Amino acid sequence: MVADKIVLAYSGGLDTSCILKWLINKGHPVVCYMANVGQTEDFEAAKAKALKLGASQVVIEDLREEFVENYVWPAVSYGLVYESRYLLGTALARPCISVGLINCLKDHQALALSHGATGKGNDQVRFELACYTLLPDVQIIAPWRQADFVAQFSGRRELLQFAADNDIPVPVTPKAPWSMDANIMHTSYESGVLEDPDQEPPAELYLMTRPASEAPEQACRLAISFEKGRPVLLELEDGRKLTTSLDILETLNEIGGQHGVGRIDIVENRFLGLKSRGVYETPGVTILHQAHLDLETFCLDREVYRVKQLLKDRLADYVYNGFWFSPEVQFTRKCLDLAAENVQGTVKLQVHKGAVTVLGRSSSKAPYNADLVSMDQLVGFGPQDATGFIKIQAIRLREHQRLTH
Amino acid sequence: MVADKIVLAYSGGLDTSCILKWLINKGHPVVCYMANVGQTEDFEAAKAKALKLGASQVVIEDLREEFVENYVWPAVSYGLVYESRYLLGTALARPCISVGLINCLKDHQALALSHGATGKGNDQVRFELACYTLLPDVQIIAPWRQADFVAQFSGRRELLQFAADNDIPVPVTPKAPWSMDANIMHTSYESGVLEDPDQEPPAELYLMTRPASEAPEQACRLAISFEKGRPVLLELEDGRKLTTSLDILETLNEIGGQHGVGRIDIVENRFLGLKSRGVYETPGVTILHQAHLDLETFCLDREVYRVKQLLKDRLADYVYNGFWFSPEVQFTRKCLDLAAENVQGTVKLQVHKGAVTVLGRSSSKAPYNADLVSMDQLVGFGPQDATGFIKIQAIRLREHQRLTH
Amino acid sequence: MVADKIVLAYSGGLDTSCILKWLINKGHPVVCYMANVGQTEDFEAAKAKALKLGASQVVIEDLREEFVENYVWPAVSYGLVYESRYLLGTALARPCISVGLINCLKDHQALALSHGATGKGNDQVRFELACYTLLPDVQIIAPWRQADFVAQFSGRRELLQFAADNDIPVPVTPKAPWSMDANIMHTSYESGVLEDPDQEPPAELYLMTRPASEAPEQACRLAISFEKGRPVLLELEDGRKLTTSLDILETLNEIGGQHGVGRIDIVENRFLGLKSRGVYETPGVTILHQAHLDLETFCLDREVYRVKQLLKDRLADYVYNGFWFSPEVQFTRKCLDLAAENVQGTVKLQVHKGAVTVLGRSSSKAPYNADLVSMDQLVGFGPQDATGFIKIQAIRLREHQRLTH
Amino acid sequence: MVADKIVLAYSGGLDTSCILKWLINKGHPVVCYMANVGQTEDFEAAKAKALKLGASQVVIEDLREEFVENYVWPAVSYGLVYESRYLLGTALARPCISVGLINCLKDHQALALSHGATGKGNDQVRFELACYTLLPDVQIIAPWRQADFVAQFSGRRELLQFAADNDIPVPVTPKAPWSMDANIMHTSYESGVLEDPDQEPPAELYLMTRPASEAPEQACRLAISFEKGRPVLLELEDGRKLTTSLDILETLNEIGGQHGVGRIDIVENRFLGLKSRGVYETPGVTILHQAHLDLETFCLDREVYRVKQLLKDRLADYVYNGFWFSPEVQFTRKCLDLAAENVQGTVKLQVHKGAVTVLGRSSSKAPYNADLVSMDQLVGFGPQDATGFIKIQAIRLREHQRLTH
Repeated sequence: MVADKIVLAYSGGLDTSCILKWLINKGHPVVCYMANVGQTEDFEAAKAKALKLGASQVVIEDLREEFVENYVWPAVSYGLVYESRYLLGTALARPCISVGLINCLKDHQALALSHGATGKGNDQVRFELACYTLLPDVQIIAPWRQADFVAQFSGRRELLQFAADNDIPVPVTPKAPWSMDANIMHTSYESGVLEDPDQEPPAELYLMTRPASEAPEQACRLAISFEKGRPVLLELEDGRKLTTSLDILETLNEIGGQHGVGRIDIVENRFLGLKSRGVYETPGVTILHQAHLDLETFCLDREVYRVKQLLKDRLADYVYNGFWFSPEVQFTRKCLDLAAENVQGTVKLQVHKGAVTVLGRSSSKAPYNADLVSMDQLVGFGPQDATGFIKIQAIRLREHQRLTH
Repeated sequence: MVADKIVLAYSGGLDTSCILKWLINKGHPVVCYMANVGQTEDFEAAKAKALKLGASQVVIEDLREEFVENYVWPAVSYGLVYESRYLLGTALARPCISVGLINCLKDHQALALSHGATGKGNDQVRFELACYTLLPDVQIIAPWRQADFVAQFSGRRELLQFAADNDIPVPVTPKAPWSMDANIMHTSYESGVLEDPDQEPPAELYLMTRPASEAPEQACRLAISFEKGRPVLLELEDGRKLTTSLDILETLNEIGGQHGVGRIDIVENRFLGLKSRGVYETPGVTILHQAHLDLETFCLDREVYRVKQLLKDRLADYVYNGFWFSPEVQFTRKCLDLAAENVQGTVKLQVHKGAVTVLGRSSSKAPYNADLVSMDQLVGFGPQDATGFIKIQAIRLREHQRLTH
Repeated sequence: MVADKIVLAYSGGLDTSCILKWLINKGHPVVCYMANVGQTEDFEAAKAKALKLGASQVVIEDLREEFVENYVWPAVSYGLVYESRYLLGTALARPCISVGLINCLKDHQALALSHGATGKGNDQVRFELACYTLLPDVQIIAPWRQADFVAQFSGRRELLQFAADNDIPVPVTPKAPWSMDANIMHTSYESGVLEDPDQEPPAELYLMTRPASEAPEQACRLAISFEKGRPVLLELEDGRKLTTSLDILETLNEIGGQHGVGRIDIVENRFLGLKSRGVYETPGVTILHQAHLDLETFCLDREVYRVKQLLKDRLADYVYNGFWFSPEVQFTRKCLDLAAENVQGTVKLQVHKGAVTVLGRSSSKAPYNADLVSMDQLVGFGPQDATGFIKIQAIRLREHQRLTH
Repeated sequence: MVADKIVLAYSGGLDTSCILKWLINKGHPVVCYMANVGQTEDFEAAKAKALKLGASQVVIEDLREEFVENYVWPAVSYGLVYESRYLLGTALARPCISVGLINCLKDHQALALSHGATGKGNDQVRFELACYTLLPDVQIIAPWRQADFVAQFSGRRELLQFAADNDIPVPVTPKAPWSMDANIMHTSYESGVLEDPDQEPPAELYLMTRPASEAPEQACRLAISFEKGRPVLLELEDGRKLTTSLDILETLNEIGGQHGVGRIDIVENRFLGLKSRGVYETPGVTILHQAHLDLETFCLDREVYRVKQLLKDRLADYVYNGFWFSPEVQFTRKCLDLAAENVQGTVKLQVHKGAVTVLGRSSSKAPYNADLVSMDQLVGFGPQDATGFIKIQAIRLREHQRLTH
């Protein structure tokens, strides 16, 4: 082990560049780790920058497939939604990146990890809980929570000054008045001008989606097939059939983006107990969620669906709060994987002007029986059975009435 | 009491007209009861028809305001959704109509009630459970579950023949190949061609909403204010301010309808255990649900919101299954009314091409504190506190890891 | 298939003897099926009686091991309790017996099944739902719900008369003024004098347990070991080590019975919506439940335990209501089996005068760390971390206070 | 406000006496606050000791009635149990004492509060969350989490040395090898020799209860009446009728103590994520819980009971974790108070040799109808209705079978 070596989760931006230099200035050898989870980034430029600033090494790892298959697809198959609306795009990426960080740490025989997450957000919790679980003895240096760092960098001005003093290149384009996080699943925006919850997000903020008003006049029709709750095939009107995870998600992102699908603007409850306003765009996965939900209620038994919902609601909170590698998430995921075994079939959809509409669904596994439900047929039970069913249900209600009146 | 008098839930259609005549033919005096819950109907023509067929009286009651204020508004304020998508438009109307039916029964000193609901559906259960609770000794005649009636009317052909034989006027327009139910909240469609779940609903089916592709190019902006979780004010771009329940809902229906909002096509689980395909359009209430959800997560404490979700999920099932007047619904509603006390404020929205988008929200009751969440400020807790928070959360995870590896 | 052959769930008592004769009188060949699930019964005498009455065959099947291993042990491992107190002794036996019935039906190429369960109880539902699931086309003849049978046998007097008329031997001892059901797990008592919920059950009612006041002065100490949540070893003070399911349960029944353990007297909610008073004695399994609960909270992670509780509460209702072979029970059981994988170890207990007391527990799988919890040691986190933890938890509460005062 | 004045939660024991002196040595005026929540304590001696050590004032407050009526009775009426067994005796006392502390703080115009709770336990969290909510600006000094204090007092030896150096009287009886907390509801024991979970608690540990083996041969019979879920009357065999809260609880403690009722020995999950072994004796409230549970299932509608259970399970966790004054507890308590409105009546019980047995119950509000449940009577529904009920329930199961076989 190299006692003072540090692996830094590096983004190439001003904050982590300053942290890099600050750590180097303190005498630490620093390995910069950059995970490619699908964000738009000039990784090579960032690498060059880090090396120039004195990083002893820069590791760039392509985690996109890993992220989609082991984090995004499970979330789709579980139907994970936080507080009724947020699809957890950032919360899912953090544990994936944490695995990369810990592997990098082990590869470089380092003991300590550093990151640029702030002291009021969820991401510090998600990174650190994941890392403490993956490597219980890891040391974590979170400069934004260290008194000396915070004292030195009390605002953006001090960061810029430090950059100037240390030859850290600063982008010429002015910083957007909000912060952003992106991956192949979604882009999120918060803070800055967004902190006023009554202020509409600026139109120029969105990077993945057009406004619905600028979407094509022509609707896009598609069909998505699932096996065990996971997307396995995307069929397009032009006859294209996509089957790999990345192809499916990227194509759905493109379609959803064009048609203005998947924007939400919410006030959510952070794990720390703060309410915070977040704006998200999740084009492809929004389409997948709708398709999956439709197929799931089609395929699952009524009561199994209800038990599944209980589990899913707990899981969404656990994942949002950063407990991806916890025993409770491991357990709940296994249960939900069991429920998903029956979710198989194809959903036809239309995407148009911001709206996703289900057009039909088919499955060889659905307990749907058109004969049974048809008004014109008598199968397995007679109309008088319903009388008995109702009369028995009414016993309790009539007794209650007898008692209270 | 008049021993053999029957109050019939009459719609004016072929089925209940045949039932009316069938009951009269058996020697019963029949009072026809028609509730106006906002459906499009020529009530006077239906009345004339019933009287001509021999009804001893026809009662038409305008329940629209009652329905909106005591059924629809509560459902909005609770956030009621069945199986993640269905807003319960029919399930909410049934208990409202049942109150009217029972009152009519009492007014006319009748003992028995009849309705035209079929033997496989939810509505028979909803009507009858409501009526048994409101008047435990009521007698209910459900011809579609009686052996003699079912034997006589084995299909539509027999109904038409009976109509011809009994001078029952039959509409000249051919029957749509699906069945329909409508009220001021929504229109629902099921059975017939819709029984194939993979078959897209015919474009001509929808009565309340245009397709999004034919919606105006111009988005519609509006603001909805809530008090105790209920809509109290609708503000439009043209300066109009609507405050009565009927005005608010009808205007939102119009806007939603124009912009293609609120269509869903689902396979749902009926109380009887059948899966059934339903198509619904709920333009105004879909807008209200989105607005309310946004305001609620803004106003409610995080944990209160979670407890509320548990209650809401149970309530949606109870209401769908027809237990509106049950002790469990009474209790759960009181709890949810308590939670709603804090849901107060205004949500700004845009409605466009099928999509409803929240633009901002404000409330004097929200525990949202921009100072607290701002990255730039230290209020009430220091960054080192987050370190402690995370380290404590990690204890359990690290122990688990220690044990399992 | 033999068109009119019937398999009758036969108990040897007055009711099913009359039903047997009644079915024979109607011209049916009747095969009597008796399951030995551990009740005290002279099976050979019952067999002779049935044959004498004209049964074409009598099948006696020993299901005790099957019952304990596939129904009782799972229930112990899931911690199944209905309405906080009832351990489901009868509800668990019904599906087990149903499997035997259906197998008997298939063996004898019969199409129809008959039983003596009454029309207000849970058992008719449990038997029939199990049988309909196991063999969807089965025909079920429930005489106590058939108009002709009920008309003929309106009370016990008519049964006795029919018995006299048909040479059905009637026990010379007068019938107890309550009804009873027994198996190796428990004995239950209901109806008759027990219908007054304020009337103490007669002392002579109990068959498996002594009153605590007559229990030995000397406490009994024992140790129970579990693997995957199931009992695998019972160690007694005298050095005996029992390892088979039947040995463990029978010995615990004996100990619990001697020491007056496991009596409950409750008013419960039947599936049909009636409240009913039941008295149960479940000596051995009461001890097992206590031991298992202790080990489970010791072994399971805090959050896994909570998710498990959600599942368990649903499952208890499903099982009580007769859905043992349903998709929801299959699913929930698989989930709970996953949770049980970690429940392994040994619990030491004392049984004395009606009370079961845990004396200690050990497990190689428990995330219990005496060093960590010790006041005297600092392991993995410092005292200042708790300060941060508390301060972060307080953010939300202080904000709430700020707002409401 | 007096800037440096501190209110100390004082117990009279070694720890808080050292803290008192340590704070005085630092120059703080210290007001000692002692709440009488029913623990056995020589309050006057403790007061004299504190004054002798230099406390500027000692406030002793009798909170027993407040504690029983506003904390214990609600917990009984909600049926609060943590992790299936712990009745929350300490968790309920903490917020009650916190109110006293904060009032004392205000009375003495102090800004800061200090307590002797350790850094790994639940009580620090409970005290501080309550106090931060009651007075968001309070300053809290927790010496056992302060680096300087912890450095000075690294073990019991240092405490004793400090006591000797500062004329702090130390009890002559040697300290028990465990720690203890007591109030009128219960006594709890933890740490020390109890940290080995497989080691039976020493017989001499228990202060409120005899071992069952030493309990009287004669059972004690009693009747407890509840209104709105709260105990209002205790009737004894000797004709005594107790009606005040303190009388009822003290008498039940005496009876339960004599008969060895209410001992539990568990491993529980602390809020901080540690598993910890606790031994509790809760004689009176254990009897009350059993009685209340019996009456509650008797009085509440089946479904109301289920909704109530959901709420209760959440509430137990919230209370255990210290959130008594949180919005979620406020909300959940209001809901449960609504459910309790119907819980009214009398339960007859027997207490004997460690076991509590319900003998009967009566209520004017229970939806129990002996006529309805009686096998011999037909009321409100016919036997054929059960056939319909079962056949409808079977639809889903038979479809599932059809599909999977």
